[in-house]
Amino acid sequence: MANITKKVSWSSRGDESGGGERTPLLNGSEEVRYTRQLSGDGGMFHIGRLSTVDLEEDMTSDEDAGCPKEIPHNEKLLSLKYESLDYDNSENQLFLEEERRMSFLGFKCLEISRWVICGLIGFLTGLIACCIDIAVENLAGVKYFVVKQNIEKFTEVGGLSISLILWAVLNAAFVMVGAVIVAFFEPGAAGSGIPQIKCYLNGVKIPRVVRLKTLVVKVCGVICSVAGGLAVGKEGPMIHSGAVVAAGVSQGRSTSLKKDFKIFEYFRRDTEKRDFVSAGAAAGVSAAFGAPVGGVLFSLEEGASFWNQMLTWRIFFASMISTFTLNFFLSIYNKKPGDLSSPGLINFGRFESDSVAYNLYEIPLFIVMGAAGGLLGALFNILNYWLTIFRIRYVHRPCLQVMEAMLVAAVTATVSFAMIYFSNDCQPLGPDQSEDYPLQLFCADGEYNSMATAFFNTPERSVRSLFHNPPGSYNPLTLSLFTLTYFFLACWTYGLTVSAGVFIPSLLIGAAWGRLFGILLASITPDGSIWADPGKYALIGAAAQLGGIVRMTLSLTVIMVEATGNVTYGLPIMLVLLTAKIVGDYFVEGLYDIHIKLQSVPFLHLEAPATSHWLTAREVMSAPVTCFNRIEKVGTIVDVLSNTSTNHNGFPVVVPVAASDDMGKVCGLILRSQLIVLLKHKVFVELARSRLTQRKLQLKDFRDAYPRFPPIQSIHVSQDERECMMDLTEFMNPTPYTVPQETSLPRVFKLFRALGLRHLVVVDGENRVVGLVTRKDLARYHLGKHGLEEMQLAQT
Amino acid sequence: MANITKKVSWSSRGDESGGGERTPLLNGSEEVRYTRQLSGDGGMFHIGRLSTVDLEEDMTSDEDAGCPKEIPHNEKLLSLKYESLDYDNSENQLFLEEERRMSFLGFKCLEISRWVICGLIGFLTGLIACCIDIAVENLAGVKYFVVKQNIEKFTEVGGLSISLILWAVLNAAFVMVGAVIVAFFEPGAAGSGIPQIKCYLNGVKIPRVVRLKTLVVKVCGVICSVAGGLAVGKEGPMIHSGAVVAAGVSQGRSTSLKKDFKIFEYFRRDTEKRDFVSAGAAAGVSAAFGAPVGGVLFSLEEGASFWNQMLTWRIFFASMISTFTLNFFLSIYNKKPGDLSSPGLINFGRFESDSVAYNLYEIPLFIVMGAAGGLLGALFNILNYWLTIFRIRYVHRPCLQVMEAMLVAAVTATVSFAMIYFSNDCQPLGPDQSEDYPLQLFCADGEYNSMATAFFNTPERSVRSLFHNPPGSYNPLTLSLFTLTYFFLACWTYGLTVSAGVFIPSLLIGAAWGRLFGILLASITPDGSIWADPGKYALIGAAAQLGGIVRMTLSLTVIMVEATGNVTYGLPIMLVLLTAKIVGDYFVEGLYDIHIKLQSVPFLHLEAPATSHWLTAREVMSAPVTCFNRIEKVGTIVDVLSNTSTNHNGFPVVVPVAASDDMGKVCGLILRSQLIVLLKHKVFVELARSRLTQRKLQLKDFRDAYPRFPPIQSIHVSQDERECMMDLTEFMNPTPYTVPQETSLPRVFKLFRALGLRHLVVVDGENRVVGLVTRKDLARYHLGKHGLEEMQLAQT
Repeated sequence: MANITKKVSWSSRGDESGGGERTPLLNGSEEVRYTRQLSGDGGMFHIGRLSTVDLEEDMTSDEDAGCPKEIPHNEKLLSLKYESLDYDNSENQLFLEEERRMSFLGFKCLEISRWVICGLIGFLTGLIACCIDIAVENLAGVKYFVVKQNIEKFTEVGGLSISLILWAVLNAAFVMVGAVIVAFFEPGAAGSGIPQIKCYLNGVKIPRVVRLKTLVVKVCGVICSVAGGLAVGKEGPMIHSGAVVAAGVSQGRSTSLKKDFKIFEYFRRDTEKRDFVSAGAAAGVSAAFGAPVGGVLFSLEEGASFWNQMLTWRIFFASMISTFTLNFFLSIYNKKPGDLSSPGLINFGRFESDSVAYNLYEIPLFIVMGAAGGLLGALFNILNYWLTIFRIRYVHRPCLQVMEAMLVAAVTATVSFAMIYFSNDCQPLGPDQSEDYPLQLFCADGEYNSMATAFFNTPERSVRSLFHNPPGSYNPLTLSLFTLTYFFLACWTYGLTVSAGVFIPSLLIGAAWGRLFGILLASITPDGSIWADPGKYALIGAAAQLGGIVRMTLSLTVIMVEATGNVTYGLPIMLVLLTAKIVGDYFVEGLYDIHIKLQSVPFLHLEAPATSHWLTAREVMSAPVTCFNRIEKVGTIVDVLSNTSTNHNGFPVVVPVAASDDMGKVCGLILRSQLIVLLKHKVFVELARSRLTQRKLQLKDFRDAYPRFPPIQSIHVSQDERECMMDLTEFMNPTPYTVPQETSLPRVFKLFRALGLRHLVVVDGENRVVGLVTRKDLARYHLGKHGLEEMQLAQT
Repeated sequence: MANITKKVSWSSRGDESGGGERTPLLNGSEEVRYTRQLSGDGGMFHIGRLSTVDLEEDMTSDEDAGCPKEIPHNEKLLSLKYESLDYDNSENQLFLEEERRMSFLGFKCLEISRWVICGLIGFLTGLIACCIDIAVENLAGVKYFVVKQNIEKFTEVGGLSISLILWAVLNAAFVMVGAVIVAFFEPGAAGSGIPQIKCYLNGVKIPRVVRLKTLVVKVCGVICSVAGGLAVGKEGPMIHSGAVVAAGVSQGRSTSLKKDFKIFEYFRRDTEKRDFVSAGAAAGVSAAFGAPVGGVLFSLEEGASFWNQMLTWRIFFASMISTFTLNFFLSIYNKKPGDLSSPGLINFGRFESDSVAYNLYEIPLFIVMGAAGGLLGALFNILNYWLTIFRIRYVHRPCLQVMEAMLVAAVTATVSFAMIYFSNDCQPLGPDQSEDYPLQLFCADGEYNSMATAFFNTPERSVRSLFHNPPGSYNPLTLSLFTLTYFFLACWTYGLTVSAGVFIPSLLIGAAWGRLFGILLASITPDGSIWADPGKYALIGAAAQLGGIVRMTLSLTVIMVEATGNVTYGLPIMLVLLTAKIVGDYFVEGLYDIHIKLQSVPFLHLEAPATSHWLTAREVMSAPVTCFNRIEKVGTIVDVLSNTSTNHNGFPVVVPVAASDDMGKVCGLILRSQLIVLLKHKVFVELARSRLTQRKLQLKDFRDAYPRFPPIQSIHVSQDERECMMDLTEFMNPTPYTVPQETSLPRVFKLFRALGLRHLVVVDGENRVVGLVTRKDLARYHLGKHGLEEMQLAQT
């Protein structure tokens, strides 16, 4: 039925699989490779710095710069460089002993700690949001004030080009700072961070994504890029910031600062950390949009398979605290302490349901707008996809990236200026003037330039103006020109080496054409009054455009509803987002998914591809598998771990079958990280015998090493020690999940995904190991245009 | 560490387990037993009709009625009479062949069908809600009008006792109708239905819970009980109604009406049906409270482990359509077509955030109110628990139940009347009078009796009055008396043999004491104006009381927020619900959980008890297990299925180990239902050989028999046929999930819960069957006051 192209031989796949014959990978464990590759210059999602490119660059460095001959089409590859996270506890004897020792009270205390941590996460995330908001507001305020003064000065006397230059230079300067810290110090902080967090919650270890340095660079970067007038928002990065805060707080230490508070040690494993990171991401959404429920749903949509009532409740708690903290501190900053009515960074303002409730016959119109949003979103994504490919090929040096960012900043200022300059859409200054920086320019006294409302403003304010300014504030030509220019500017901007989000620009584009749609509608209908409120159409347009670009569904509906503070618009927004998703998906994937694919991340979707029932575990698994015996020679272990041609992270432990050359029967599973700790502490059978007083290895030792386990090369094992034996019984997971060879792919997938596994042992009828399924083995299959397709695995 | 009391020997457990030596169960398969027990008079959750009681009743029928000597403490038992649902597809050859035959387009069509079904579910649920609302409003309107006329007539001339009698008789008449149809026709329709739906989504098959007859009785019953003036709400039953609609629509046929539309046949299995039932339940919540997001979260909270992005999105769609349908038809009914501003059955009215936003220093007060709600909720639950035990013992005949319901109705009327009569709290009739039936009684002209606002009204309206009536509408004494009486009335009412929900009465109690709290607060603080709005405290009190009773968390917060239409109250409501839950849980479980426990349902919580790590699969499983061979003699199968002492629903299929008496190696798992279909179609090896043209058994045959598989007794197998062989290879699930014996209970639990399993095979190192874990084996363990406790299994 479905035809599949096997593009890669079975022997060359899977670095987590413990499989046998593999093509050579880079030297050392993956952790080492990451560090080496990334500390220099590259980072994931930071599109310009793929290591393949680096390699090619090295090879072609004698020739003229740039222009490598062939860049692989990354979206058809799966990278082997990403490790997985272990969302299934390794229930070895040490773990079980600890759990059994713990009293009921102990569990209660843990539960309370979890709540405290979530509270802290919410608080800190809210605080960060508050700092970003205040910093951006002040910097942008100063900038606009200076430029406005200058424009006013030169409007009379001529020489507005000086104002233009001033504006462009100011923008470029801000953006330069933001781009330099990102490009040179922490490329992982580029972009909105939402794709990275999606991957993390999905179970892919993205190097450096939840580190303190990333957070610092992210926060400073986003302040600079928003203040620099780029077509970006400060909301997306909040999600990443919240996640970093969560990962930091929950571990009770900072590896970067070399500070261990000796608290929360129980939570030092992937399973627990992931739960907190979900809470952090939710808190970030909540702070960004004042949408605590939307935040919870965002986390659920992304971390879907790991659902748990208590966890969700804690996530909700973190979200609530976060939005509350932000609101509280902002209210103090705004000198209205206790006024808790603006809960998020972006606030759509209140839509009063009485005045603007929609009518039944407007629903088809909304659906049409949704379709338009889907089309425009797909266009945006395709353009950005091409641009990203271009960037991967040609813009991969940090200095080039900084220059591109500065160029975009200057161009943004120039285009904005030109639009304002050539626009002659003057509007009277109302008594309740809501514009912060009304530009008179060539308008008559008491009037202001309407184009400037959209361009000479932070995007958040522009969105709000489009939603709420009274009918007649904008003329259609202004809006069309604005939509057109802003669309291309935003598309160019996304993927630059700056920290920035795409939510607000999308909303702004949508709000502009939505309002335009509303105005046109009012003009062609005889009874204009019933269509009176173009703000409503701006809202629907904003939802449609954003939905068409990011393709989020439930969580986005709730976020929009919460940000408008009006439940009545739930149904239209949902319909619009649904239409936008259906239409958009017909052409191309969502923006985040495109970027995840371009990074070749082995991302597991929620379900196996529909037509994959004819694949079985036997075909999917990696084989043969490198196994260890229960009591294994140290030399063997060191050799296997050091083997650079395999680079496995999990090894089944087997009991040899007597009088047979076959694989042994599976009796456990042990991870590379565990073996590393064992080797480091020299837990050898012979030593234990000779030094009876030797301290027994505890779970604490594993936790102390988490999450940055040292590479095997850093562990010295003498020739004598190589002859020792290691007893793995106590440390291996004695009850790994197994499946028979005949299990269908969807069934394997379901087990893998529902339990958050990293390794799944495939056994035959006799319980002998025949293969190992890892994330990459499952992520390879996807539904393409011609049915099921298989992606290549590569070491990009 | 934790001590456990083994109250039952290993050999007497588990009817789903395929285990060996069991105590005798009732004759026949469970399906038969259900039908037999229930068609007569009993039903689950319909507290008075436990089959134990029936049995005892039979035994003691010679003696004086009632008063059996010993009733087991049901909350310490797990009943064996509940079957589980199969939330894991049986991926046998037939299924895989069908899936593999299906093209990508086929899957698309299925997906579209799912959307259509969800839309239909939402539409029908909304329609039902609309009917209920209109019926209740009219019936209650007529009743209150008649009584009001009567009271006004007799207020002057004396003889108000006639009015009292009229009121009581009217109430009792309505309630009698409601109680009779429930008690005599469909006891499964009693109560709110929320515990049943919780169980269903959890994976327990509750007999007759999603049948058409249940729906009809439920709808009529709830109309009668609300119109009859009981302290009940019409909201809870909507959830059950939605679920029934979903179960019916998604199957494309009605077994009750013997009508098969031959559509949606693909969805005729537990997995798919469960997904639609979640959507139905969500649509019900959505229609009841105008809370589509709350509905989704309710379904998620209850059906937690089965999460999926597309599913959630469909659930949300159903919810939206449901609230929209209700709103639309109600707007037509109210002669304001297109006014979509009252989305739910209950509408808390708009809380304008400007006037009543809370202050930071009020938060401790809210938390205190939450604690009070928790205490009062616990008291409510304990009282209701005792009452329920009493009802199980003494009120188990349908006629007694009807009489009790009528008594409660009459008492409610009497108490209300007395309260109104003796109250002298007169309030001036404002110009914008919001009361529908203002009773003047002994008040001066232009005034009305304030107590009557609370009692002489449907509870929904009373709640709204308490939230929104201006300060000073109630005096403290009125409110205290009202709280007190209504508390006990509501407590007495819940568990009656009528269809009714506990949401609204809880809200009403809470709103009353919350408002009281607000009034008192305003009176003791010097600056009364800042506490000016007692409506806010009424809202918080309502949340606290409801949270204290039902202990729902996230979904309830969202429901409350959506029902108030104001996001600002999110944080206080969440804090209040959290406090109420913590305080309440200290004393007793939530009301729904109490009733589930009293019915001895093997309900699986989200996680294994915290201190259960020292239990392993070996200790938990049922053993020995009845297994079949791949090719098994028909006689053996019939004998095993007919064996009344075991009553297993799942059987491992094994390959015998040569030269050994041990258990064979597991190679598959087959269900009773599948064997029944095979026997019915006489799929015997010999017949297949002789009649070469015989039609091959298809998945369709299994689907046609679903969900009411015939009992084994109804299938005639001749003596000759008993000698035939049956080849199970094609029909068994060849890849059942297995775990080693050493697996810890939490790990088994996680696997079981995450995948929605019904049977989990426990194997030894050689892959030989050593035991079977079923839902009852896991549900037995729970955390009691003294650590881990084990519940008894019984055939109650």
